[in-house]
Amino acid sequence: MAQNPDCKTYEEVMFYDTDAGGVVHNIAYLRFVEKARTLLGAKLGLSLKEMSESGLYAVVTRTEIDYLKPALLGDKLTVHGWLEDVGKARFCCGFEIHRDSDGNRLVMSRQELAMVQMPEGRPARLPEQFEKYRS
Amino acid sequence: MAQNPDCKTYEEVMFYDTDAGGVVHNIAYLRFVEKARTLLGAKLGLSLKEMSESGLYAVVTRTEIDYLKPALLGDKLTVHGWLEDVGKARFCCGFEIHRDSDGNRLVMSRQELAMVQMPEGRPARLPEQFEKYRS
Amino acid sequence: MAQNPDCKTYEEVMFYDTDAGGVVHNIAYLRFVEKARTLLGAKLGLSLKEMSESGLYAVVTRTEIDYLKPALLGDKLTVHGWLEDVGKARFCCGFEIHRDSDGNRLVMSRQELAMVQMPEGRPARLPEQFEKYRS
Amino acid sequence: MAQNPDCKTYEEVMFYDTDAGGVVHNIAYLRFVEKARTLLGAKLGLSLKEMSESGLYAVVTRTEIDYLKPALLGDKLTVHGWLEDVGKARFCCGFEIHRDSDGNRLVMSRQELAMVQMPEGRPARLPEQFEKYRS
Repeated sequence: MAQNPDCKTYEEVMFYDTDAGGVVHNIAYLRFVEKARTLLGAKLGLSLKEMSESGLYAVVTRTEIDYLKPALLGDKLTVHGWLEDVGKARFCCGFEIHRDSDGNRLVMSRQELAMVQMPEGRPARLPEQFEKYRS
Repeated sequence: MAQNPDCKTYEEVMFYDTDAGGVVHNIAYLRFVEKARTLLGAKLGLSLKEMSESGLYAVVTRTEIDYLKPALLGDKLTVHGWLEDVGKARFCCGFEIHRDSDGNRLVMSRQELAMVQMPEGRPARLPEQFEKYRS
Repeated sequence: MAQNPDCKTYEEVMFYDTDAGGVVHNIAYLRFVEKARTLLGAKLGLSLKEMSESGLYAVVTRTEIDYLKPALLGDKLTVHGWLEDVGKARFCCGFEIHRDSDGNRLVMSRQELAMVQMPEGRPARLPEQFEKYRS
Repeated sequence: MAQNPDCKTYEEVMFYDTDAGGVVHNIAYLRFVEKARTLLGAKLGLSLKEMSESGLYAVVTRTEIDYLKPALLGDKLTVHGWLEDVGKARFCCGFEIHRDSDGNRLVMSRQELAMVQMPEGRPARLPEQFEKYRS
């Protein structure tokens, strides 16, 4: 089994990420997670351009997200994402978001994805390149 | 020339509409405007389902929006939208957003739209039913 | 133990809810869930205005969401939310989203919330009115 | 009069930026513009952290945006922002968004901003450092 791929993306908290509670809104973190997952997908042969061309898309079937501490306006964040588990038709990615200034872990998340052949919307097997990460 | 169609939609300001300044974020009002425009489009024979089926879409080519006073968390808002002007290939809609509790006008907006035949992305003429609103 | 409160909200899928896959984007459903939760909160004495005034906010500490079937542009959706479980410092809400046209269940979600006294950000006990729903 | 400051930010179009029309949704570009404006603000002594500390915020009072050509999933974009004009109580920023692959200009925008002293919400003069850019 090969070393599972991972990636890091970086965010700076914008006004539109925050809410009237003065902190990052719970939904905004999922955009951060999606950006990391997109980069991770590109490492797995599932870049946006490749998916557009083949019509074979990875779609999120489940999200779990735990909010540990709030991020604030202007905070610089590091989003770490990794391939966690590979099944026959699904794979899982894990994510953690840390604040750069104090190293605090703010958010943990886990997403399950399945392959779908578009436009028919037909479930498809994971591409071959996932084979080497199967546990 | 027929009376120009108009419509009203109603919003309650959610946490995700606000930002750390304690007010509705400038981008969120454009979702309110889009909901009113969608309802107005349905009155003009351009409902989402009709556009999906014909592939003939109204696309926004220009937005102007003036922020007069801020809306706050929990505010109830009325969005008024109307057909403002009809050209050969484009039409304009106007919008105003008022707060229900004090009647204050918070936002004014104007959007220009053009017809596009998808998936080619080819510019198209306005549908016939716009004829009667041409000034 | 009193009957747990629940609520229903109604959505029509807008363009901004969808993505280039032609379906509702996974993040957009969380806005639908938040709207239902806000209404449910109002029934529990935690309306947006009440939280603004007391500074005692219910904050989401965990979200789980399962995507069963995709919603499409123009779909009319019913979001059902209910109080699922009440602990000392936390409570859980459950949600289901159905499509009106065919009755299909599209999404299931569960959120855990905790009370926080702002602006200190200090954890607080659940308000008294939750007592009668404690299992 | 000093050379007006400008900045460049870079975006890759994510799924959540697109809609069922297969292109970037009109509202998503305003997040791109806000990120560029935030960086530009930092060059003008109005970083998010500085505004949080002083309570003196630049708020958008008007947005104009022209959609010339659509951006697509996976496109890499360059957002150019610059200080366009400085008045007594307001300043204007200009923006252009180009696609990297073909150099096409996709979007032009202009935003007017005013200074507000929070939490009172009282209009304030532009900070001193704007003096040298006044035309």
